[in-house]
Amino acid sequence: MHEMRKNPITDTWTIIASERANRPHFAEEHKEKCCFCYGNEDLTPPEVLVHKKKGDISSVENWQVRVFPNKFPAFNSKEEFLIKEGAETQLYSYARGKAEVIIETPIHSQNIALLSQDEIELILKTYQKRYISLSQDEDAQYVIIFRNNGIEAGASIAHPHSQIISMPVIPINIVQELEQSKKYYEANKKCLFCELIKTELEQKKRIIFENSDFVGFIPYASRCPFESWIAPKFHSDSFEHLTVAQLKNLSEVWKAVLLKLHLALDNPAYNYYIHTSPVHQETSQYYHWHMELIPKITNVGGFELGTGMNINTSSPEENAAILQKY
Amino acid sequence: MHEMRKNPITDTWTIIASERANRPHFAEEHKEKCCFCYGNEDLTPPEVLVHKKKGDISSVENWQVRVFPNKFPAFNSKEEFLIKEGAETQLYSYARGKAEVIIETPIHSQNIALLSQDEIELILKTYQKRYISLSQDEDAQYVIIFRNNGIEAGASIAHPHSQIISMPVIPINIVQELEQSKKYYEANKKCLFCELIKTELEQKKRIIFENSDFVGFIPYASRCPFESWIAPKFHSDSFEHLTVAQLKNLSEVWKAVLLKLHLALDNPAYNYYIHTSPVHQETSQYYHWHMELIPKITNVGGFELGTGMNINTSSPEENAAILQKY
Repeated sequence: MHEMRKNPITDTWTIIASERANRPHFAEEHKEKCCFCYGNEDLTPPEVLVHKKKGDISSVENWQVRVFPNKFPAFNSKEEFLIKEGAETQLYSYARGKAEVIIETPIHSQNIALLSQDEIELILKTYQKRYISLSQDEDAQYVIIFRNNGIEAGASIAHPHSQIISMPVIPINIVQELEQSKKYYEANKKCLFCELIKTELEQKKRIIFENSDFVGFIPYASRCPFESWIAPKFHSDSFEHLTVAQLKNLSEVWKAVLLKLHLALDNPAYNYYIHTSPVHQETSQYYHWHMELIPKITNVGGFELGTGMNINTSSPEENAAILQKY
Repeated sequence: MHEMRKNPITDTWTIIASERANRPHFAEEHKEKCCFCYGNEDLTPPEVLVHKKKGDISSVENWQVRVFPNKFPAFNSKEEFLIKEGAETQLYSYARGKAEVIIETPIHSQNIALLSQDEIELILKTYQKRYISLSQDEDAQYVIIFRNNGIEAGASIAHPHSQIISMPVIPINIVQELEQSKKYYEANKKCLFCELIKTELEQKKRIIFENSDFVGFIPYASRCPFESWIAPKFHSDSFEHLTVAQLKNLSEVWKAVLLKLHLALDNPAYNYYIHTSPVHQETSQYYHWHMELIPKITNVGGFELGTGMNINTSSPEENAAILQKY
C-alpha cells in the first residue's frame, strides 16, 4: 500500500505505508551483515550514483558515497498522484514519489561528524545531484533531503546514511514558511531570512561557526536544546543552485557544526533536513533555503504535540556559548 | 526566565524555560521518595483541589486525586503578556500563564488504564473543574490539558499525573483546526467533525469503542500506529460544557480506549491531550472538541520534522481490528 490520506481537520497528508514495518531494524543488523556496508552491495537495489574516493577513478569498487532506491519506500512512482474521495471527509491518493538512500561512507562505524571536509563536501555534492534528478519527475512538487542519526532519531539502520524523497504535494511546514516569507517580502521588500541572519551576525550571541558564505547558529526561538541552523549569508532560495565554490564553503560550516555538536553532546542522536524552494514554484525573491538540525536529547511531550509549540528547557545563548568553546 | 520567543519563519511561539532543566527525573525519583505519592504532600506546593475517595468525606487524608501548581512551570502568572521587539525578527514576551499538576492516584505504581470507571470519572471531573478555573485568567487565550505516560513520552516523573496549562496565545495547532472547521462550516453549514464521526460510525472500520454519547476510533489519516481519538457524537465545541451524565459516559469510553491500548500494546508510552475551543472565542457552530492520543511506539524522524507530514507504518483499519478484540 502506497497511500496518502488527508486529515481534514488539519488539512495535512499522512502517508500510510504499512509494508515499511517489514524493513530491517538496528537490533537485527548485528545478527546478519549490514546491507549498507562495503562489500555487501548486492544486498541493495542497484545504485543510481556512486562517488569514488579521490584519485581512484578506474575501479568500480572503492566507493565513498553510494546512492540507490529505498527498498522499503514510503512513496513509489508506479502510479500517478490523483486525489480521490472515499467519503466527504476522506480524501486519498496513491503516494506518488521517489525515495533514495544516500550511503555516506563505506565504513559501518564511521561517524559523519568525524569525516574530513572533503568527504562532507562529497555528501553535499551528492545531495545536490540527486535533488536535481528527483525534481525532474513531473509529479514532484517537493523534494526533501534529511538525515536520522541514532535510533532515538528514527534511524532504522546504524550505518551512516541520509535520505532523499520526492513527493506530490508541498508539505505543510514549507507552506507555512513560504507564507510568512512572502508576507514579509510584500510588506518590506526584503527577505525575512536575510534580515534574521543580519541580526544574528550583528548580535553574535548565537553564532556557532561562520565563513564568508555561510553561518551556523542557534536560532533565537529554538525549539529544543542545541537546535542548530545553517544558512547562506547571501540570498538564495534554492539549495540546488549552489556553485562548486559555495559547496566547498558550505561543507566547512557543515562539518564545524556537526563536529561541535558531536564533541559537546557526546555523539547525540539528531535529525537534520534541508528546507529549500518547492520544485515548480517561483520563490526567488522571498524564500531563503537553510538546513535545520534537531538534537534528540529531550523527549517531546503532550504539550508539544497538542499545541505545536515547544518548551525549550535551555537557553539558546548558553547553547551557542558552549559550542563556541569546541 | 519565563520567556516566549517567536520564530518569524513559522510564526510559532517557543517557550524558553531554562530553569525547567532543574526538575526531577525518572532516575532520581527512585533514590529518594516520590513527591507525588501519598504521604509526601509536604514536598509539593499546597493543593488547589483535592478529591477524596468515595464515602470518605470527613478526612483531609485519603485523597484520590490531588491538584497543585507545577513547581517548575513553563508559564508563570507574575507578569502580563506584552509582546516586545528585541529586533525586527525577534519578538518576545513574558510567558504569562498558569501550570498545574493533576495527580491521578495516590499509588505510585498504579496504571490509569487499570483504574475503575469511577476513578477515571473523577480524573475527568477534575480536568473540567481546573479547566474552568484556569480559563478565568484575563490573559488566558487557551487552556490545554495533557498527559505524558512513560519516559519516552516526555514524562519526567513516573507517578501517574496529567497537566493543565493556561497560555496567552492560541496555539498554532488549534488555529489550524479552527480555520479548517470554519471554512467547512461556511461552505456546507455543517460541522466538519460531526461529518467525520458520522462516516466513521457508518463505515465501522476504525471504531475502538462507543456508547450513546461518545466514540473512540482510529482516525482515517492517523499519523502513527494506534493513534486514537475520543469525541462526542453530539455536536459540542467545548469540553467544559459536559454535563454530569455526559462525563459518566465519557469515562466509560476513556477507560475502554486506555485499557485496550494497554492490553494490546503492553503498557505503551503515550501522550494524550484535549483539543477544545479557545477561552474567549465563539466557535460553537463550527468547532468540535475531542481528545487525541499518540502512542510513542515509533520514533519520529527527519522526514516528519522537516515536512510536518507523517509516515504511518501500519494500517489504521488493522489497528482498530486488533483493539476490538480486547
